[in-house]
Formats: sequence, structure tokens, C-alpha cells
Amino acid sequence: MSENKIPYKIYLGEEDIPQKWYNLRADMKNKPAPLLNPGTCQPMTAEELGAVFCDELVQQELDDTTPYIEIPKEIRDFYKMYRPSPIVRAYCLEEALGTPAKIYYKFEGNNTSGSHKLNSAIAQAYYAKKQGLKGVTTETGAGQWGTALSMACAYLGLDCKVFMVKVSYEQKPFRREVMRTYGADVTPSPSMTTEIGKKILAEHPGTTGSLGCAISEAVEVAVSNPGYRYVLGSVLNQVLLHQSVIGLEAKAALDKYNVKPDIIIGCAGGGSNLGGLIAPFMGEKLRGENDYRIIAVEPASCPSFTRGKFAYDFCDTGMICPLAKMYTLGSGFIPSANHAGGLRFHGMSSTLSQLYHDGYMEAKAVEQTDVFAAAEQFARVEGILPAPESSHAIRVAIDEALKCKETGEEKTILFGLTGTGYFDMVAYQKYNDGEMTDYIPTDEDLAKGLSSLPVVPGQD
Amino acid sequence: MSENKIPYKIYLGEEDIPQKWYNLRADMKNKPAPLLNPGTCQPMTAEELGAVFCDELVQQELDDTTPYIEIPKEIRDFYKMYRPSPIVRAYCLEEALGTPAKIYYKFEGNNTSGSHKLNSAIAQAYYAKKQGLKGVTTETGAGQWGTALSMACAYLGLDCKVFMVKVSYEQKPFRREVMRTYGADVTPSPSMTTEIGKKILAEHPGTTGSLGCAISEAVEVAVSNPGYRYVLGSVLNQVLLHQSVIGLEAKAALDKYNVKPDIIIGCAGGGSNLGGLIAPFMGEKLRGENDYRIIAVEPASCPSFTRGKFAYDFCDTGMICPLAKMYTLGSGFIPSANHAGGLRFHGMSSTLSQLYHDGYMEAKAVEQTDVFAAAEQFARVEGILPAPESSHAIRVAIDEALKCKETGEEKTILFGLTGTGYFDMVAYQKYNDGEMTDYIPTDEDLAKGLSSLPVVPGQD
Repeated sequence: MSENKIPYKIYLGEEDIPQKWYNLRADMKNKPAPLLNPGTCQPMTAEELGAVFCDELVQQELDDTTPYIEIPKEIRDFYKMYRPSPIVRAYCLEEALGTPAKIYYKFEGNNTSGSHKLNSAIAQAYYAKKQGLKGVTTETGAGQWGTALSMACAYLGLDCKVFMVKVSYEQKPFRREVMRTYGADVTPSPSMTTEIGKKILAEHPGTTGSLGCAISEAVEVAVSNPGYRYVLGSVLNQVLLHQSVIGLEAKAALDKYNVKPDIIIGCAGGGSNLGGLIAPFMGEKLRGENDYRIIAVEPASCPSFTRGKFAYDFCDTGMICPLAKMYTLGSGFIPSANHAGGLRFHGMSSTLSQLYHDGYMEAKAVEQTDVFAAAEQFARVEGILPAPESSHAIRVAIDEALKCKETGEEKTILFGLTGTGYFDMVAYQKYNDGEMTDYIPTDEDLAKGLSSLPVVPGQD
Repeated sequence: MSENKIPYKIYLGEEDIPQKWYNLRADMKNKPAPLLNPGTCQPMTAEELGAVFCDELVQQELDDTTPYIEIPKEIRDFYKMYRPSPIVRAYCLEEALGTPAKIYYKFEGNNTSGSHKLNSAIAQAYYAKKQGLKGVTTETGAGQWGTALSMACAYLGLDCKVFMVKVSYEQKPFRREVMRTYGADVTPSPSMTTEIGKKILAEHPGTTGSLGCAISEAVEVAVSNPGYRYVLGSVLNQVLLHQSVIGLEAKAALDKYNVKPDIIIGCAGGGSNLGGLIAPFMGEKLRGENDYRIIAVEPASCPSFTRGKFAYDFCDTGMICPLAKMYTLGSGFIPSANHAGGLRFHGMSSTLSQLYHDGYMEAKAVEQTDVFAAAEQFARVEGILPAPESSHAIRVAIDEALKCKETGEEKTILFGLTGTGYFDMVAYQKYNDGEMTDYIPTDEDLAKGLSSLPVVPGQD
């Protein structure tokens, strides 16, 4: 390990927890397209959105002009439990790679939810509580978001109803039990407790569920039970807003040592982590103050950026949610069964989609055996067992560092280590046993998914 | 959450990682009794111990006079990955209990091994590497020690052979996979790969193994393979020495704010965490500089302190290890099958046993449903999902805080939160489902265990 004056971990103090979230949209010339009412194809009004989401979150969702939004004291107090999160100089990884590159990662797995999801969960639960609601509903796939929301609701004394994709409910009983330990009500989806669940089960009796289907059930329960609203862990503008604490802290820590990253890398499923990590850096880029190379990494088996279409689409399978303009594979697209971990949502944050469309960032798709090879290499030298999702970013960070080794360039790389892989050992076992496979969807697979795109006037 | 000037987390900087381990034995008037050769009943010599343990660790094991021992730079560099560990003021728990007590906990679960075990694992692996060895062998029950050692060996490029108690190997496949991900060779114990394993399997064909039996196998492999030594995660003096970083950091953090704990609480299985946490405080107590109430918490189902005998006993089932003088339930004692989690070793650190015998600390035994109730209460307000072992300390910390509520005393309580419970969700599920039971061994059970005590001259 080098004797560099930059410490292994750059810790910030409690006083360095951001006071305000940064709203990236305020600095975008081309704003993300508004959500549309699927019936009228008109922009969703605050009133319409208020039937599903908490009032203050609706304001945040629609606000694309205010650059900084105050973080309520109660949320900052909760953040103190696990924030500021560490930013680590990956000295050991650099040495193992023999690269002149300087690698940093912002580690968001240092809390029981095991990921960055808690940053938005506590915010959304707080506003629900403030509005006097009884509880919230949501869906969870890999389980990180559901765990985070359960924790936030336990802390605030809110009821929490989680629809967990049935295949995860069965294959990840431990994730389920963590949520139950925090007092959440966890239902496998599709279930017989909702109309949409009954309909889906009648049409597909043996289905093991999907994220899009669980969203539909959670929304139905929220709108049909007084005192409940629906909350979502990614994709939405409000979620990216809350997640900006990741980037703000990362930037503050690097600024302390006058470090400016050349390349910023994050995994991308719905975009919550990536949008949060890059927020202040992208803001500088949008304002022309600084330039950064920004790379979104997605699984080759669910390649919404690299092979999807930039179009209005449903966020859910039941097609009851608003339409969002995003890079999408179609709400009917489901990644191949060999795909492990999260990052399996068919669409991508409207904000990130617009930025990608406008050329402010790149995207790369990586195959999962390569991802797990990077995960294992990272774990052995850096100690932390990374989540499969985070390992997509590790893969590309290692690849970029190895390019530096060839060229001799001393580039500074920052990547987001969004979480830990303790609940993903089934996937690690497959990798350890040499049984993990890759799958790249064929053009035919993709065409089938995109055939479900809704018809929206003015869009081809 | 209170506006107290003491932050939620007291972070120390990298420069505050201890430079030296504190060797509690140097300040003890009554030294812990020496290890005995089971054949001769004479104190084990350095040469005899060197056949099993690394040379420098043998010196540490035998050294009961040097108060401070330098931590090699390479180990301190590794500590930088996850140390200093946070010390947390449990504001949320205090508020939930409505107690005037001030509760602090030292959290050692912020690393992938999920516990404090890494503190000694890296030290033991380092000395093995320094001696030019090829690898180390060990046993693991709950899996925390095996994980920690696998991580340390991966970092140093040492071979690591872990004998995992068969019932854990089968019931905790994810722990096993974490170790494999770090490159360890994991064998269910008893196995057909050792003479002692074959013997045990021949005598008890259906056995699911025990910690004492896995120790015997690991020792056999170490002594019969050139270039290998055996390492152990608890009980030994060297382990308590390495774990003193816990207490040294805790004391440094509290000293920063002039906080003096009245009560210090730790869970106790073999004593590694407790011995580390209390080290500098106990040192002050032994030297007459300060007084502290120190409480060891053990499971009612494995009550070595509260119901065991202070006597020489074997550390392993195969009876091939040296004899240690300790509070013991007999090497044949196995906790009831309903017992979840670790803290299931039949004996207790010789150092802690002597201190307990001499009246420097108290011990309490708690039942596991009470422990899990405390764990759940803690998780919901403090966020962290605690390990079942750590939750023994939480139970007593809460009980002491509730006593303060009755009396109005503003006592300061410090407890050790040794790890996280991510790999213990089977036990949590039992608790969540109301299926967890308690078992207190009968006097007959205990008499049966103690009947296996060896005959040692001069001891009744």
C-alpha cells in the first residue's frame, strides 16, 4: 500500500453531510420530458400525481428549475446513522492491477439495507409521515429497496407494505426476513390480494413475477387504501434528487485533497445510483465549468441505454402507471433467466436518458461472468464483497485502469460502489462453481419487447 | 434525536489507529495459568507450541509481562481498510427506551467478515506469511472467523484451509460461498480427509459436527503438512491481544469527549471480543486508576462463566490440543440444538477466566428469545441488524438502561456491537415466526459435560 498522503479512506464529519440536495435538472437546457397520463397522453398534473405519491414528493418530481432543495433536519438526523459514507482510495486494487491510474470509490454499502437505497427511502418515508399518512406501499426485486424502505418506516413508525417479486421472495428468503424484522408486511407478487395480481395470475398461472408486475400491485394498494401512497426506489426525478448526497459527499471529499476525477463510472438499472453519484459533476459539465468523462454501465442482458429506444413507455407491466420518456426495452421485456442481481428494469431514468441522448455521458454493456470476475478480484484485494450491481461499475473501472497501464496515463477514476453482496451468494456460488453463463438478447428478443411500446401522439 | 454536542458517530482518523496492542496480562497480579501439555501436564514450551502455531504468535501467547506490543506496519495498513471502527451514541435507542442513561456502542461489523474477527485474522495471517509459510488451517462454526481468515489470506496470498462444522456448512451455504469467493478451501467437518475425522465418523456416523471436532481436524492438518500452521479465532491470549484495538479505539474516542463509561458490556463466547473491548479499561481497573463495572454476557444455553467450573480442560473434542485453565462446561458439552448463532464454545479465555475468578468482572446469562427481542428493538431504531452474538450484549445494555429509567440515574453504558446478522436470518425467521425456543441446561446436562474433564495433578 502506497505512502501517498491521501488516506485509504477519506472521512468527512457529520457537519459535512449535505444541507441541500442538488437538483441536476435545474442546470439542464433540455429538460427531461414530463410524465404523461397514459389515458390522455397529456402531462400529469400535480393533482393527478398526488393520488399516487406524497404531495411534497410530487413537487420535487415536477420541479426542474430549483437547483438546491433543503434537506429537512429529520432526514439529516437519520443520515447521521450511516453518512457521510466513506470514499476509499483503492490503493490495493491499483497495486494488484499494476496501473498508474488512481482509483477511488464511494462506498454506499455501510448500512443494513446494504446499498444507497436508504438515501431516498428515508426521504420518501419522512414526507409520507409529515403528510399524516398511515403507510406506504412499494415493490422490490433484488430486495435492497424494500429493505431500505422497511428500515426507514420502522424508524418513523410508518406501516410498510412490500410486494416482492415472487421468484425473489422464494429464492431470497433472507432478504424477506430482514424486511420482516423491520416490521414490514411482505407479499410475494403476483398475489391474490390485488385485482391486477388476480388478473395476471389468471392469465399466467405459473408466473414467478416481475418488477413491473409488482409495481402495478403496489400502486393499486396505495390508491385504493386511504392513508397510503406509493413510493419507488429508482427511475423518478425525486429519487435522483435524494441520491445527490452521494455525489455531493464524493465531490466534497475529493475537493479536500484537490483531486479531480477524469472518469466517473456508475452502474445503471433505473439510474438512482448513477444519477446521484454524477449529479454535482454533471452540473459542472452542464454549466461548462469542468469536463468529466461519465460512463453508465449496464448488463448486456438488459441493455436499455445501449440497445433500447428513447421513447415514451410504461414504467410497469400492468400499464397503470404514467408514461415516462426514457431509453427503454419495452415494459414487456424481461431479462433472460440466467441474469443475476438487479439492474433488470426495462427502462431508465428520464433525466439520465435525456443527458445520454444529448451526449453528456457514455454507456457500456458488460457480460455477467466478466462482472463477477471483477467482483472477485476486487473483494480479494479491497476486502469488501460487492453487490453484483455495483460490480458492473468495478468491471469498467478495472478495464479503464488497465488501459492506463498500457498507455501510461495517470488518470483518476471514481466509481460508485453502491452496495454489498451478502444476499447474492447464490450468484457468487454459481460463479465459484463455474456454472454462471452469459446471455446477450438477440435483435428478435429486443424487437419483441419494443413491440409493447404505447402509441403516443408526436412520437414515432 | 438529541441536539447533544456529542455526534451520533465519533469517528477517529487513520492516524488514530492504535500503534500498539495492549497486553492486559502485563497488569494482572494473578496471571492466567499456562497452557499444559496434555501428556505430561507440564507447561507447554515455545518449541512445543511452535509445532502448531507460528513462532511470533507463540511469543505473544507466552508473553505476560510486556504491556504494549508494536503493531507491524503491514497490519496497520490492512486495518486502514475498515478501522478505526465507529463508536456510536445510541441516541435513538435511548429515546425509544425513555432512559436517562447514555448508551454508546463500538461497532465492529463494518467489514465484509461482518465482525471483529478480522482484527486477529490479519495479524495471525501476517505472522504466518512473515515466517514464510504456505498457508494456515482453522475451524469455523458460525462462520465469522472463517470468513475473516479467508479475507486476510486472500489479501496476503496465503493458502487457507477451513474446517466448517458440518451443520453450519449445510445450513449456512452463503457463509461458505463468501469464504470460497475469497479463495479458501472449505471442508465440512468431520471429514474423511483427516485421521481424527475418520475416527469420529466411524464412532458417530450421523454426526453433524462440533467446533471442538473441527479444531481437532484443523490442528491435525497443520501439524502433518509442512509449511502450515494452525490459527484460532478466540480463547487464546494472542487473540485477546490483537482484539485490544477495539477497546483502545473506543477509549480514545470517548476520551475525546471526556466520556467515562460506568458500565462496559460485551458478549462472551471464547472471549475474543470481550477481552478486546475491555482491555484498556480493565488495565486502569487493575492498576487502581479507575473503576468500571464490567459485564460478560453469555447464552443461558452455554453458560461457561455462570455455571461452569474453573479448571484445566481440553480446547477440542479430539483432546489433542493443550490444556487451558478456564471456566468450562467440559469439552464434551454441546449446546442444545435450539441454540442459534455462535457463543457455543464450551470454555472461556484463560485471561478472562482469571479476571472473573478474581472478581474484576461480572457475568450474566440470557435466554435467546429475550436476546432476539433486544436485537429487533435495536435494529428498528438504530438501523443496524445485529448478529445474534452481539445481541446478547444489547439485551443487557437495554436492561441496564431500563434500570436507570427506574432509578433516574444517568449512567453511561458502553457495549460491544461485534457484528452484523446478515447470515443469521434463519434464526431471525424463527423469531419472526414465533418459533424460537429457549433451553436452559439441567444440572444433569452440565454434570455430564463436566465428567469429561481431564485429570490434572494439583487440581480437584
